[in-house]
Amino acid sequence: MDSDVSDWWSTSIIDMEPGKINLRGHPVQDLIGNVTFPQMIWLMTRGELPSDEQARLFECALVSAVDHGPQAPSIATARMAVTCGLGLNGAMASAVNMLDDVHGGAGEQAVELYGWAYDAVKNHVPIERAVADAVERWRTERSKFIPGFGHRFHKPEDPRAPRLLSLVDQAVKDGIVDGDYASIGRLVQKHLNEEKGRPVPMNIDGATAIIYAELGFAGPLARGLFCLSRSVGILSHAWEQMNQGGRNKGPTPPHYFWTYTGPKNP
Amino acid sequence: MDSDVSDWWSTSIIDMEPGKINLRGHPVQDLIGNVTFPQMIWLMTRGELPSDEQARLFECALVSAVDHGPQAPSIATARMAVTCGLGLNGAMASAVNMLDDVHGGAGEQAVELYGWAYDAVKNHVPIERAVADAVERWRTERSKFIPGFGHRFHKPEDPRAPRLLSLVDQAVKDGIVDGDYASIGRLVQKHLNEEKGRPVPMNIDGATAIIYAELGFAGPLARGLFCLSRSVGILSHAWEQMNQGGRNKGPTPPHYFWTYTGPKNP
Amino acid sequence: MDSDVSDWWSTSIIDMEPGKINLRGHPVQDLIGNVTFPQMIWLMTRGELPSDEQARLFECALVSAVDHGPQAPSIATARMAVTCGLGLNGAMASAVNMLDDVHGGAGEQAVELYGWAYDAVKNHVPIERAVADAVERWRTERSKFIPGFGHRFHKPEDPRAPRLLSLVDQAVKDGIVDGDYASIGRLVQKHLNEEKGRPVPMNIDGATAIIYAELGFAGPLARGLFCLSRSVGILSHAWEQMNQGGRNKGPTPPHYFWTYTGPKNP
Amino acid sequence: MDSDVSDWWSTSIIDMEPGKINLRGHPVQDLIGNVTFPQMIWLMTRGELPSDEQARLFECALVSAVDHGPQAPSIATARMAVTCGLGLNGAMASAVNMLDDVHGGAGEQAVELYGWAYDAVKNHVPIERAVADAVERWRTERSKFIPGFGHRFHKPEDPRAPRLLSLVDQAVKDGIVDGDYASIGRLVQKHLNEEKGRPVPMNIDGATAIIYAELGFAGPLARGLFCLSRSVGILSHAWEQMNQGGRNKGPTPPHYFWTYTGPKNP
Repeated sequence: MDSDVSDWWSTSIIDMEPGKINLRGHPVQDLIGNVTFPQMIWLMTRGELPSDEQARLFECALVSAVDHGPQAPSIATARMAVTCGLGLNGAMASAVNMLDDVHGGAGEQAVELYGWAYDAVKNHVPIERAVADAVERWRTERSKFIPGFGHRFHKPEDPRAPRLLSLVDQAVKDGIVDGDYASIGRLVQKHLNEEKGRPVPMNIDGATAIIYAELGFAGPLARGLFCLSRSVGILSHAWEQMNQGGRNKGPTPPHYFWTYTGPKNP
Repeated sequence: MDSDVSDWWSTSIIDMEPGKINLRGHPVQDLIGNVTFPQMIWLMTRGELPSDEQARLFECALVSAVDHGPQAPSIATARMAVTCGLGLNGAMASAVNMLDDVHGGAGEQAVELYGWAYDAVKNHVPIERAVADAVERWRTERSKFIPGFGHRFHKPEDPRAPRLLSLVDQAVKDGIVDGDYASIGRLVQKHLNEEKGRPVPMNIDGATAIIYAELGFAGPLARGLFCLSRSVGILSHAWEQMNQGGRNKGPTPPHYFWTYTGPKNP
Repeated sequence: MDSDVSDWWSTSIIDMEPGKINLRGHPVQDLIGNVTFPQMIWLMTRGELPSDEQARLFECALVSAVDHGPQAPSIATARMAVTCGLGLNGAMASAVNMLDDVHGGAGEQAVELYGWAYDAVKNHVPIERAVADAVERWRTERSKFIPGFGHRFHKPEDPRAPRLLSLVDQAVKDGIVDGDYASIGRLVQKHLNEEKGRPVPMNIDGATAIIYAELGFAGPLARGLFCLSRSVGILSHAWEQMNQGGRNKGPTPPHYFWTYTGPKNP
Repeated sequence: MDSDVSDWWSTSIIDMEPGKINLRGHPVQDLIGNVTFPQMIWLMTRGELPSDEQARLFECALVSAVDHGPQAPSIATARMAVTCGLGLNGAMASAVNMLDDVHGGAGEQAVELYGWAYDAVKNHVPIERAVADAVERWRTERSKFIPGFGHRFHKPEDPRAPRLLSLVDQAVKDGIVDGDYASIGRLVQKHLNEEKGRPVPMNIDGATAIIYAELGFAGPLARGLFCLSRSVGILSHAWEQMNQGGRNKGPTPPHYFWTYTGPKNP
């Protein structure tokens, strides 16, 4: 066997021989029944097992983001997909594809935004200044939308964010995480509130980003982990729609149709 | 507001108002930090919370199937995807789409196969006869491939299957599940071994199907849950490839190319 | 180089060397500017170039099915996708995935249904009997939905079907195709009309299936070619939505929400 | 009916009533049989019909990019997909998803690059300077990879590019297009050749981008149109693989496996 072929695909994740499957060096049979699913997710994405306490905080983020209802494009897509004839894998694929920069990228973006402030603080910039600079830089370099804050529907606040923050606070007290990103996140909210003169509350993405950043996850993984979490709701809705039946279900009741805005006679 | 529009999408999964997100009737903030991720998956897909013991057995199945390496089309697709420029959501979508009937359907199919035998036993057919009939019916109505048994790579056996079976046995002893599907699964293996005159060992799909069936999951959910589980490996490999870099990575080293079998001069 | 690696992927479609790309044996530079896009599609999928007359009839089918508006799940998905942040490739992928058995399979199914009648006629079964048998067999073995006939929206008839049929008739007169499938398709409609006592008119899938079958395309290609054709509308709507803007556009106006049917207190 | 629901989806592409389908204002039955498939693609994406001469040049670009063999991640994905159990729609979706920034974005990027130079020339910057500035700006703002030039495989040149350029030249002579983008594209190549001291020939993306830009297509449509064109090869390879058979076909022959680079004992 030419080594260049075996070298073409290389991975530090999985080692296999007939009868042997090692994941990150652990025989799979030693993991099954001994690690939780969140621990397994952490091990697979990062290479080492988390402590039980780290895994518990991590689990809170995974639990929190599973669903936001059929008005979310991802969930609507999953439900339409099964009425088009797709199986659950196809429905999940179609729906997870939707979790791109706008629908699924806010967590990743918030980790990055927080990271800018975090790095500045490490370089002795006062934290409030670091936060204000990071927000300003985001607007200049990226977008007017500050990721992780504000919600078009949940007013005055997204019920998941304060709950997640209180769990982070507890983890700080327990010495599990440092709390630097929680401080930064709260200051971003304070900064935005003052700017706007009204509450711009932290949303689910802003809160889960704090957890992922506190636990040392890289920004892109915040998106990937959101995809994993939301896959639970996607699967649930696809399965419910499968049981409801329906064929070629469109977005609105059929008799509403759409507005035609083009020429009558070209 | 016309009620027919609000009725067009209906769900028993999620209830929302501004500031309120209830999942299967539970305020989301009461779930976060209080239920495990596997319990949440169970709640979302089935509508009620499992006991801790049920959730632990369920978790074993989720942990067991996360990865099978870059030779699996799903994993290879995820890795190629990021070298084509896709983000993690797109890589996960592309890869999960691959988990169709052949690559991801064996668990669902095994639940169905076991179910045929189970129903016959409930109708007083002796269990060995019920199993033989189910296998025969599968071959007649579906395929020569008996789902959940045999492995082209793991010989003499897939290390995940006996580990999962031993955990089911423990759960039977502990009164968590009945063990009927475990008996049926083992008899399918015995039947195939005798037919072939050589071991045709139960594989990961045959074993997880026992767990899902023992816990009362419908067949199609076995596929959906496999998609969730394998999404972990997919995410991990996509992320590793993203860190390795590469652009437009093809399946084999570039200089190997392919075999052209068509006409020289049409 | 080990030959087994180069043999792993084999194809009769494309032959390449540095500076050389032959498609089905034709140097690509000889095809560019000399064959039409429909001729290229035919060459690629079937291995030989069609006559100009065959290509023109084929082109009619490709032109006819490009769009059916934003109520179609495929088009709605494409439009939602770009508001989630996907590029045009991702929007097209998400949307084409929707064209499964229910939303995109009718053409393939109609080719198969017609084929049953066609084979019976070749075996000297009278054509009206062959058609009635095929319809009956479809209901028994497949589904109560006869593919290619009836339309929930276009009443009394789908404007594309009679136009396509008239072009087939002209091609029969011109000796391009035999017309056997056109006869069978019309008899299916007559049979259904008589059964129901009301018109069950042939729709776009029933009509394009006649063209594909007359031209010798295999059933599954009818689905693939529909995907190609509908990709044009998908691209157009995705692009229009990209220019309209919008973020996370859900299926219905946001204030309509959905109907919750689950428990208040679990 | 509440108008806000009908207004939620709006389009200038398609107008429908029962029995009526107008595309960009044209009754569909008047288009079928009277416009070519490329004319239809142009009409749908841009709103008006092209002249026959414009359509012919456009068609050359569509014909040129249909396939690049099973080493391309898109084609490999399509072929793997059908061995996983997906139908042709799913295989096409999985494969088109791959045509993201790296695998499918070069045409769009080249249109943008050329556009920078074009705008500068309109502002009276000498064309060679405009081209050099555009290349420099691309490297500063985007990437070290200049889109549309160089090929890791086709050396000394991609056979499609000179053929496409000669057809553009003819169209300039015939007064169909102005030739400004052709001049810019050729100067980009001259600039890169001189910089590198060796040929960095224009590739398929650089050449089709010239055609799309000459014909007035916006940059993102260059990607969308490439997706349409490549969908032909994707469909053809998926269909060929379906006929070859195979189950869960991995990227390399199974006995080659992969290289494990992780820890032995974590």
